[in-house]
Amino acid sequence: MMNLFVNYYQRPIGQYDFIEVVILFLIYVFLCMFVCKLIECIRVLAAVAWEPGKPLVIEEVEVAPPQTMEVRLKILFTSLCHTDVYFWEAKGQTPLFPRIFGHEAGGIVESVGEGVTDLKPGDHVLPVFTGECKECRHCKSEESNMCDLLRINTDRGVMLNDGKSRFSINGQPIFHFVGTSTFSEYTVVHVGCIAKINPAAPLDKVCVLSCGISTGLGATLNVAKPKKGSSVAIFGLGAVGLAAAEGARIAGASRIIGVDLNPKRFDEAKKFGVTEFVNPKDYDKPVQEVIAEMTDGGVDRSVECTGSINAMISAFECVHDGWGVAVLVGVPNKDDAFKTHPMNLLNEKTLRGTFFGNYKPRSDLPSVVEKYMNKELELEKFITHEVPFSEINKAFEYMLQGDGLRCIIRMDA
Amino acid sequence: MMNLFVNYYQRPIGQYDFIEVVILFLIYVFLCMFVCKLIECIRVLAAVAWEPGKPLVIEEVEVAPPQTMEVRLKILFTSLCHTDVYFWEAKGQTPLFPRIFGHEAGGIVESVGEGVTDLKPGDHVLPVFTGECKECRHCKSEESNMCDLLRINTDRGVMLNDGKSRFSINGQPIFHFVGTSTFSEYTVVHVGCIAKINPAAPLDKVCVLSCGISTGLGATLNVAKPKKGSSVAIFGLGAVGLAAAEGARIAGASRIIGVDLNPKRFDEAKKFGVTEFVNPKDYDKPVQEVIAEMTDGGVDRSVECTGSINAMISAFECVHDGWGVAVLVGVPNKDDAFKTHPMNLLNEKTLRGTFFGNYKPRSDLPSVVEKYMNKELELEKFITHEVPFSEINKAFEYMLQGDGLRCIIRMDA
Repeated sequence: MMNLFVNYYQRPIGQYDFIEVVILFLIYVFLCMFVCKLIECIRVLAAVAWEPGKPLVIEEVEVAPPQTMEVRLKILFTSLCHTDVYFWEAKGQTPLFPRIFGHEAGGIVESVGEGVTDLKPGDHVLPVFTGECKECRHCKSEESNMCDLLRINTDRGVMLNDGKSRFSINGQPIFHFVGTSTFSEYTVVHVGCIAKINPAAPLDKVCVLSCGISTGLGATLNVAKPKKGSSVAIFGLGAVGLAAAEGARIAGASRIIGVDLNPKRFDEAKKFGVTEFVNPKDYDKPVQEVIAEMTDGGVDRSVECTGSINAMISAFECVHDGWGVAVLVGVPNKDDAFKTHPMNLLNEKTLRGTFFGNYKPRSDLPSVVEKYMNKELELEKFITHEVPFSEINKAFEYMLQGDGLRCIIRMDA
Repeated sequence: MMNLFVNYYQRPIGQYDFIEVVILFLIYVFLCMFVCKLIECIRVLAAVAWEPGKPLVIEEVEVAPPQTMEVRLKILFTSLCHTDVYFWEAKGQTPLFPRIFGHEAGGIVESVGEGVTDLKPGDHVLPVFTGECKECRHCKSEESNMCDLLRINTDRGVMLNDGKSRFSINGQPIFHFVGTSTFSEYTVVHVGCIAKINPAAPLDKVCVLSCGISTGLGATLNVAKPKKGSSVAIFGLGAVGLAAAEGARIAGASRIIGVDLNPKRFDEAKKFGVTEFVNPKDYDKPVQEVIAEMTDGGVDRSVECTGSINAMISAFECVHDGWGVAVLVGVPNKDDAFKTHPMNLLNEKTLRGTFFGNYKPRSDLPSVVEKYMNKELELEKFITHEVPFSEINKAFEYMLQGDGLRCIIRMDA
């Protein structure tokens, strides 16, 4: 046998004994099986962002198997959110390329890594850009969803377990994005970032609940908590703001005042329950004064979904004293300062911020899916476009043109 | 008879007929009875502030009877609060003198005006500087105590019903203060500003619940709502701050961190449950950072009781992300601006202000008195001095010297 290993490269093939060939073949097969077992890589199509702002390229990518506490998902539908575009443009943050973006999606569990007990292949799931480890003080708190372990991290392009990527092209690692990277036929996600949902729920609809829609909806339902018959002002009528309006509609608010600089948005906003529209450009005075006059002192609740610091201040100052609650959703610029006279606070107004609508991804998202299944929450009106995966760059174009709300990307098409 | 009215001044007394004298006497008596019935003035002692910052003068004052929805009270005990001193000094606000100050007190109903149905002579009561009409949208809201009709008004020195004062000295009106003016043996108060309490409660103790103690206590119990075992930072260890600490103690907070620039206050603060003390002067970095380091990221709740804008910002920024709630109690300067980075809000911190601890005076104060009766709330430790009414100016001296917490003024002494 020693002879076999020493000489087999040096002899022409005809000179091998039959038994030697069989042994070599078997060793090769066992080695392959061993390596496959060890690696279990799959080769799939993914839309890779090679450079900031440049069109994504559909590439064949190797996706490594899930490690401890990880899950490999087959993505069926994904949608595009502003956050993908923001980091793809890489204006103002450290660029991390090549990268696979995408964080709103619906999929099915393909395989699970060690330690994963509450998911199994075939489960229908929504991957989420933030997580719920169920062990940390945030997860154990009823009030917080800002998991210490799995809280959104836009700078990290690798998996927590080994600090490496599960995506590669010919050995070159491709960075992850917010732990989800759903612009890929398969992706690997930490189990804490996966919500297991009702398998009867249509994934091409509920996939939008992975991020923006839940954020707006939860901001209203979980944080602002308007009462039936109350008045709510929504600042910013993009997808998140309209989801906040949808929350106000579901809560039974009788006046939903939409505030936006773009008057074209009002018609669409009506579908989401918005009853009145205020364009700050139409007035010489601050919009908070306009709203206070419209509502005899201020709205009961406001939800800010633009990220503009002035809108945040207006949203706070337009709520009624005694009981008004303003909820900030939009992400501000680094150098912004929120500024108000403290008497606005002493008059019993409340100012709160929210992250992912205060939903805990694993514990709470399944019930949001049920709201859709019960026809309480209408998701269809958020979905304005649909493209096959091969045309994913069209989804970016729609968003950059401000055209529509959500574009569903079908992975199987 | 005409002769009688025309000539009675011109004739010497001996020239009147007996019958004329009797008629004149009877007319005089009836007139007196009529005027008394109409006016029902009483003459009592009150401490009058004739000029800003000058010692009060005990004067005999006429107190008119209560008009519609008003109640005349016999004050048995009153105490001095910073707000009295602030308006007595008249620095920065429109001076209104002569005035009878005082707004923390305990008394007994002497008489009631028309329309008053839920109070009767003999009832034990606490007058309050703000009110509860029970009719307006604030009173009907579960969330607010900022009554539209009777909300504190420091500029108004007269009664709502007729825009006039019920106090006078030889016809000169003496202005009211925040509708209570308890530095008087008797005072007239709108029924909406009177809490009827358990007659078994000792008025020389529970009188301090009329303002500052309830404000601090309610800020913690009604607004911050710390959970058992949680951490609470209290900014400012005066009477209001210590009442906020007392609230945290009652709620079962395990860490109560007192923040004050005066290190002498810590010993006293221990009696109110304060477990740790931070003097911002002892550190080179902002106190919010010191507290965040002490508490692994921030306290669960904070209550600001100084009115300093920097303390307000620190109180907000020192709470934990995910669930931290900061409550502002202290009254800021007119030109102050509350300024923070909005990411502090998006990290799920909440900023709230409160007024009178969110207690509705009539509906809620009786239950605060019961907390004292049940020995849940300890009031004795707030009462550091006692003076007879004749020495009321001593109470001002104690407060100006920063000596003690509450000085009870005994009206019968």
